[in-house]
Amino acid sequence: MPPTDCFVAETTLRVRYKETDMMGFVHHSNYLAYFEEGRSEYARQRGTPYSEFERAGYLLTVTEVNIRYVKPAYYEQVISVRAWVTALKSRGMTFAYEIVEQSSGDVLVTGETRHICITRDGQVARMPDM
Amino acid sequence: MPPTDCFVAETTLRVRYKETDMMGFVHHSNYLAYFEEGRSEYARQRGTPYSEFERAGYLLTVTEVNIRYVKPAYYEQVISVRAWVTALKSRGMTFAYEIVEQSSGDVLVTGETRHICITRDGQVARMPDM
Amino acid sequence: MPPTDCFVAETTLRVRYKETDMMGFVHHSNYLAYFEEGRSEYARQRGTPYSEFERAGYLLTVTEVNIRYVKPAYYEQVISVRAWVTALKSRGMTFAYEIVEQSSGDVLVTGETRHICITRDGQVARMPDM
Amino acid sequence: MPPTDCFVAETTLRVRYKETDMMGFVHHSNYLAYFEEGRSEYARQRGTPYSEFERAGYLLTVTEVNIRYVKPAYYEQVISVRAWVTALKSRGMTFAYEIVEQSSGDVLVTGETRHICITRDGQVARMPDM
Repeated sequence: MPPTDCFVAETTLRVRYKETDMMGFVHHSNYLAYFEEGRSEYARQRGTPYSEFERAGYLLTVTEVNIRYVKPAYYEQVISVRAWVTALKSRGMTFAYEIVEQSSGDVLVTGETRHICITRDGQVARMPDM
Repeated sequence: MPPTDCFVAETTLRVRYKETDMMGFVHHSNYLAYFEEGRSEYARQRGTPYSEFERAGYLLTVTEVNIRYVKPAYYEQVISVRAWVTALKSRGMTFAYEIVEQSSGDVLVTGETRHICITRDGQVARMPDM
Repeated sequence: MPPTDCFVAETTLRVRYKETDMMGFVHHSNYLAYFEEGRSEYARQRGTPYSEFERAGYLLTVTEVNIRYVKPAYYEQVISVRAWVTALKSRGMTFAYEIVEQSSGDVLVTGETRHICITRDGQVARMPDM
Repeated sequence: MPPTDCFVAETTLRVRYKETDMMGFVHHSNYLAYFEEGRSEYARQRGTPYSEFERAGYLLTVTEVNIRYVKPAYYEQVISVRAWVTALKSRGMTFAYEIVEQSSGDVLVTGETRHICITRDGQVARMPDM
């Protein structure tokens, strides 16, 4: 569950048919795209869309990912991706996530992604002040 | 069926689990990725890997796609992507494709993609002589 | 452009980072997922979500796809998918689509998908009256 | 690095264009599909293709994923996915992975996936003896 004392961005998505696999529910890799959209929404709400971050010459690459799958998500379900920051350093940051099915409120997935700031030529860099 | 008088590149792929959807077979959008790999193999066999084409400053973007689906492909099946060129102009080209299931020889999908050569800044350009 | 005398469903999506490729804009295969969501929204607005169609034992498989790419879509752009029906037969149907970038109103992509109704065991079937 | 005293399956893949994103290299979610193909190859080499496992009425769902990203993979690179089992229980199992770029031998990604065996109706089940 997101902590109560930090900024949490919430993004609402509807599960797409293409995101399912022959098990009949969402393929486990798609939650990384959901997390990414949660991160994008977080950045937009904080005033710095990630597209501007890249236009300034920086990339926020992923160095580590941890995901726990609690319940499957099904086609056409509406889900909420909650994203917040758990660590912010000069050269990187960590996001945490919780994905909830909207009608039931059930937690489907939780996770964490770690990031490092690099320049276009691959050098680790200080995060820009944007 | 590919014509007998032109160069045809053949690429062998195994259907991935992630490429299936809840219908139980390959999602129709994935054949565009299969075509793309057929095109990549064609370029490599002709001596100009597409990655070199891009390093030279050109992009071969897709302007049109037509696909006919004959039979579904299933997880773990081995398929052959046959790709050949049906039109070559100064600023673009057209590829045709046939995807065959290897053990039965059944045609699964046929299609065509049209391309135009552009530079990184989006200008239409003559195809480089590589 | 959608005809003025038929029902058109409109779905709003934001381009995801994962949908881009190294050309810097949306990979051409992703428009098939956008079309699919346009179709899903069409069915929901008409009162029969596609998930109910499948629960009733039917699949609406894709038999043909034609797409024209006019302008690229970029990460974080908001796009509208307009979907409408151009042919409705006892055993299949055809959808047409137009994808527009919301802030400029520019048409990015147009296309068409043809479908046939089958049962879970692969037999062509009359479309159910739902 | 895989331990020397256990069975390790190796799968060779070529990075697809569609797997890249606008950063210019493979999107981090695609390694889960590479892991999955490593797992599939492992099962085939051990004599029980995963498609047979599902035909017998079982699913091996993913309950947890951990990935560390060391170096990016680029379009057209040939990579090896090494997969092995680190825990085998009556109702689930754990796989570990290492992905290596073939020409340099560089490790690109390491990871782990945990799985639980369920039946089609979602009940946790003993892994079948296949």
